[in-house]
Amino acid sequence: MIEDKNQQRTQLSDLGEFGLIDHLTGNFKITQSSTIKGIGDDAAVLEFKNKQIVVSTDLLVEGVHFDLSYMPLKHLGYKAVVVNLSDVYAMNAKATQITVSIAVSNRFPLEALEDLYAGIETAARIYNIDVVGGDTTSSNKGLLISVTAVGEVDSGDVVYRNGAKPNDLLVVTGDLGGAYMGLQVLEREKEVFKVNPNNQPDLDLYSYIIERQLKPEARKDIVKLLADLEVKPTAMIDISDGLSSEIMHICTQSKVGCDLYEEKIPLDPQVISTCEEFNVDSTTVALNGGEDYELLFTISQDDYPKIKANPNFSVIGHIKEASAGLHLVTRADARIPIKAQGWKNFNA
Amino acid sequence: MIEDKNQQRTQLSDLGEFGLIDHLTGNFKITQSSTIKGIGDDAAVLEFKNKQIVVSTDLLVEGVHFDLSYMPLKHLGYKAVVVNLSDVYAMNAKATQITVSIAVSNRFPLEALEDLYAGIETAARIYNIDVVGGDTTSSNKGLLISVTAVGEVDSGDVVYRNGAKPNDLLVVTGDLGGAYMGLQVLEREKEVFKVNPNNQPDLDLYSYIIERQLKPEARKDIVKLLADLEVKPTAMIDISDGLSSEIMHICTQSKVGCDLYEEKIPLDPQVISTCEEFNVDSTTVALNGGEDYELLFTISQDDYPKIKANPNFSVIGHIKEASAGLHLVTRADARIPIKAQGWKNFNA
Repeated sequence: MIEDKNQQRTQLSDLGEFGLIDHLTGNFKITQSSTIKGIGDDAAVLEFKNKQIVVSTDLLVEGVHFDLSYMPLKHLGYKAVVVNLSDVYAMNAKATQITVSIAVSNRFPLEALEDLYAGIETAARIYNIDVVGGDTTSSNKGLLISVTAVGEVDSGDVVYRNGAKPNDLLVVTGDLGGAYMGLQVLEREKEVFKVNPNNQPDLDLYSYIIERQLKPEARKDIVKLLADLEVKPTAMIDISDGLSSEIMHICTQSKVGCDLYEEKIPLDPQVISTCEEFNVDSTTVALNGGEDYELLFTISQDDYPKIKANPNFSVIGHIKEASAGLHLVTRADARIPIKAQGWKNFNA
Repeated sequence: MIEDKNQQRTQLSDLGEFGLIDHLTGNFKITQSSTIKGIGDDAAVLEFKNKQIVVSTDLLVEGVHFDLSYMPLKHLGYKAVVVNLSDVYAMNAKATQITVSIAVSNRFPLEALEDLYAGIETAARIYNIDVVGGDTTSSNKGLLISVTAVGEVDSGDVVYRNGAKPNDLLVVTGDLGGAYMGLQVLEREKEVFKVNPNNQPDLDLYSYIIERQLKPEARKDIVKLLADLEVKPTAMIDISDGLSSEIMHICTQSKVGCDLYEEKIPLDPQVISTCEEFNVDSTTVALNGGEDYELLFTISQDDYPKIKANPNFSVIGHIKEASAGLHLVTRADARIPIKAQGWKNFNA
């Protein structure tokens, strides 16, 4: 919401397509032994010996998935990478390479794209992946980013969504609802800014949840931790759309039901206090908010001793036969069916 | 240009995101032994034993790369796949899987997306590849398609852009300029249609070049043919931006120069006649037109006997030392430096 009026602006057309690609991707270093050839040919060339390869792709659209009035471009680049890596980790795999394509209107100067790519480069460095390709083109309106991630996994270690069995425990990492409440705070500040552009918001009270929205992290550490603990989940998914949607994916694909305990859903104190301030129900936020990029998985009860003391994990329910259905068990011990949320994007 | 007023229209929001994905991708069959898991989890899972893997990605934007007023959606789906496969073949690799992501505004009903996916499915069947993932989201404006292709190649067989050596021959497949001239005809007919919507154009005279524009094919056959002929190119690229741009890529990356002979550039008679009709120079069209998706490659002179009788190939020049520069040798024996075209998309 703070605009630097003195920023330098270089027109994209000054560079030409190939000059632009070279300029933006010149900092990307190749560190993966599986990367034989990165950016600069018709395709990247990778080599994985006796590994299975996972491939995941996501598309982020301005005005649908992000709002540049409060999302700095560097954060956007970082987040675009992270949300894709999260899908790779949800397969219990190691992310190794990404491709990044962008469509961008003439309203963006070169410096804006440099910020975007600085965020991409930071994410690539922190998560130790190679950027091996992409496409850069113009759009009629706005900015769009498409990321495809490639990862590797030993054949016996891959975890699908469809392996949950009755009596398995339902486990989630971290805490939920923060990204959604961070978005609510940012949306409110945007409205305040429209009325009074000189207002400098004090967002210290919301620092955790705003960071969850603007700079989420993917749980690479969990894949390593599960391996160290010798726990192989029976099913796993990342939480991009919200807990209820992800539980439904696991239960539908595994052909099982489940009980989810409201009191077990992990919430950060800042989420609880902000929900009170906004007068929204924190359970609803955790169930439907999305964008937390935590991992949701199921494990055999035999593995419970290995995870029970670990602060990264919360057991939030258990798997039942399909005929039992999917239910939220409330604090008042009511059983409420878990339902799908509509596709918000198309209902807007 | 012919609109069916009675067509059925189903709102995308009626289906929801997951219903839509299931609906559109339900026809996709898995045929590749390297596809362990296709659509329906956080990522696709692939396995290639002792092969190198190539990955290529392209982004197509409405109003920039295609115009739906003359591009039927089924053709667009087909073309979006083909242009990506072309990059895989340009690595001398076999295409095996793709992911397809689309961003689409509410102006498109379900039936439009069904047409788009019918084209994708047709291309997948004809080129024998699996569709293993993707993302479907809404856009504020228009349609955008992002395709990522994966292929495999024996480590010794991969061909980069950077292997051309002085005295190598410069070879192109098929003929050039057709896709560009087809576009000129379609643009002209669009203008006529605006003035008189009842005019039914007679496009028989232009059938070949219009097909080159609306339904291009990737040269999968050439990869097989080169293997059968036991010719491994020293460098290869596909012709998406135009012959001059692709020659410059090969020469820059290989650190060589070249002579290109105008009289050797293969042109279809329909390209020549349409260039005369539009009063444009056919050599300029072949050099800068783009979108032909033919393959341009260099071979050692020792391999010349293996290709010389084959109607798929035209030898159009030869590689020189870098210090000699890059030149077009005209029919009048003038030597004109080959220059880069600007990035048309950003100059528009």
